[in-house]
Amino acid sequence: MISKEQTLRQLREQLEVFLAKTFQGDEPRGLYEPAAYAMGSGGKRIRPLLSLVGSLMATEELTDKHFSAALAMEVFHNFTLVHDDIMDEAPVRRGQPTVFRKWNTATGILTGDIMLIRSFEYLARAGDRHTLAPMMDIFLEVASGVCEGQQLDMDFEREPAVSWADYQRMIYGKTAILLRGCLEIGAVAAGMDRDRAAQLGRSGGLMGMAFQLEDDWLDCFGDPARTGKQPGGDILRRKKTALYALTFEFGDEATRMALAQLFHQPTDIDDIQRIEQSLALYNDADAASRLKSISSSWMSEARDTIYQLPLRTEGKKCLNEIIDALVGRPS
Amino acid sequence: MISKEQTLRQLREQLEVFLAKTFQGDEPRGLYEPAAYAMGSGGKRIRPLLSLVGSLMATEELTDKHFSAALAMEVFHNFTLVHDDIMDEAPVRRGQPTVFRKWNTATGILTGDIMLIRSFEYLARAGDRHTLAPMMDIFLEVASGVCEGQQLDMDFEREPAVSWADYQRMIYGKTAILLRGCLEIGAVAAGMDRDRAAQLGRSGGLMGMAFQLEDDWLDCFGDPARTGKQPGGDILRRKKTALYALTFEFGDEATRMALAQLFHQPTDIDDIQRIEQSLALYNDADAASRLKSISSSWMSEARDTIYQLPLRTEGKKCLNEIIDALVGRPS
Repeated sequence: MISKEQTLRQLREQLEVFLAKTFQGDEPRGLYEPAAYAMGSGGKRIRPLLSLVGSLMATEELTDKHFSAALAMEVFHNFTLVHDDIMDEAPVRRGQPTVFRKWNTATGILTGDIMLIRSFEYLARAGDRHTLAPMMDIFLEVASGVCEGQQLDMDFEREPAVSWADYQRMIYGKTAILLRGCLEIGAVAAGMDRDRAAQLGRSGGLMGMAFQLEDDWLDCFGDPARTGKQPGGDILRRKKTALYALTFEFGDEATRMALAQLFHQPTDIDDIQRIEQSLALYNDADAASRLKSISSSWMSEARDTIYQLPLRTEGKKCLNEIIDALVGRPS
Repeated sequence: MISKEQTLRQLREQLEVFLAKTFQGDEPRGLYEPAAYAMGSGGKRIRPLLSLVGSLMATEELTDKHFSAALAMEVFHNFTLVHDDIMDEAPVRRGQPTVFRKWNTATGILTGDIMLIRSFEYLARAGDRHTLAPMMDIFLEVASGVCEGQQLDMDFEREPAVSWADYQRMIYGKTAILLRGCLEIGAVAAGMDRDRAAQLGRSGGLMGMAFQLEDDWLDCFGDPARTGKQPGGDILRRKKTALYALTFEFGDEATRMALAQLFHQPTDIDDIQRIEQSLALYNDADAASRLKSISSSWMSEARDTIYQLPLRTEGKKCLNEIIDALVGRPS
């Protein structure tokens, strides 16, 4: 039980105590040690915090049940990372070797499986006779949506014609639906009516979409001193980002042809040329400013929704803090 | 709704109608087509039949809810096959290319994930306000146990000292716990009291353990004309079967040393010599007859338990039919 004067930082400290216990001491260690490793490698813990904040919208006192719901979301998120890293053959995550690289592919698959199962276990612990069924409904829709988003992402690797609608569908699954689900499940776990929780969740979805757009923008135009990455990484990995989709949607025929060719045909240009040519095409379609304008309209809508809903002030305050941390304060 | 005069064959026909619909028409096809393929490739459907029979122990009329519980078990089982095939690098399953070979590893992983999620979805549909929580409890214990069994199986590949207790723990997870869970979940879905369902489930667990022992025995001593396989395949794959564990448990020191060396040290003997030497060691420890005696005592216990429980006769009749099909009639 936690006192009602709650800050995001206190929430996070509490959460870490629960997180530190997940998979500790479970046997066989060959299965659970990689799972504990995957959970322990940090990250911003946005998803479980959103779940707790969802609960705070409906109750002033957080109990173990609300933390269980939050753990379900974080364990699920980390399950997706463990399996995605195998699919993407990614060697490093948050500065550490990925699970399948530190152990092997079989261990990576099985570890992810047990994490997915465990996320349902935390969910079951978070529910009661009234809340378990709606929480399962939401969680199942979210979990399926995340897998579908990952599939679309893989499909789009081979597909030049990625429209703006396609892109939105993909990031909804890859990012937004889980943020939506976190707010919604946290709220339902704390007894919020399901329709109200869905309205709250919608703001989380918009936030997630905007966040993904900003992330795509930063990869091209971010300050390397702040992002810690050389700009243009997504272009070199031929990723179908928002900039690609907007250029494909709004560019003229010549721009679209050139874009498809650049991303799909073998060429002997070097990395710098590839980035420059892509940026020039993005520029032809005015993709960066379109992105910024869409992202900011989604964020406004998310903030307005939260503002208008008749929910607890403390929850709203914490949620605005998370939004500020994710996409910056409104200018 | 099905009439009360139920035979196993009618149950299976009904079941196939439901199975044929799983994953049909779901989008994106890149995700769900491999899942439908994995479900469609046949098999004996023992697990969903056990679930239906569990329901028949408690009710005379099977409804969609009972079929949903059965589907949860079959989809879960096929999820484990899709992921196990990647871990074991198995090219063929039931005469068809495995999912990851027909598509690729990333598709195999993601397909398995969506199948695991879908199994929880069918479970949620099978439950109501009273039954969902206990069904989740049982399913989560079973699902975790299956992953733990798979991990032990992989651990044992590198481990010469596999005791009889180790082996039982492993096959309990690999085979028995799921058969137990099928009976138990089907029964709870039909309103059976949880303690009674656990007693029924225990007979399914014993049956599964005995079935695994018979399977290990057949691999060495079965008639190739009936099994369709050359004897000794497990030995050539260095699998730690019941015969290995019994030899390790009951053999003298020299036999254990020779066994560990044969399975773990590189030698230049050919396949026939390897099989002959292993069989000689198994014989030193009297492993085959020990196996037969343990298996038959487990089967008797399973049949006695079912006989003694105050459950519907029709369910018992169907369950005995399944047991006969799995391990043969008692001699």
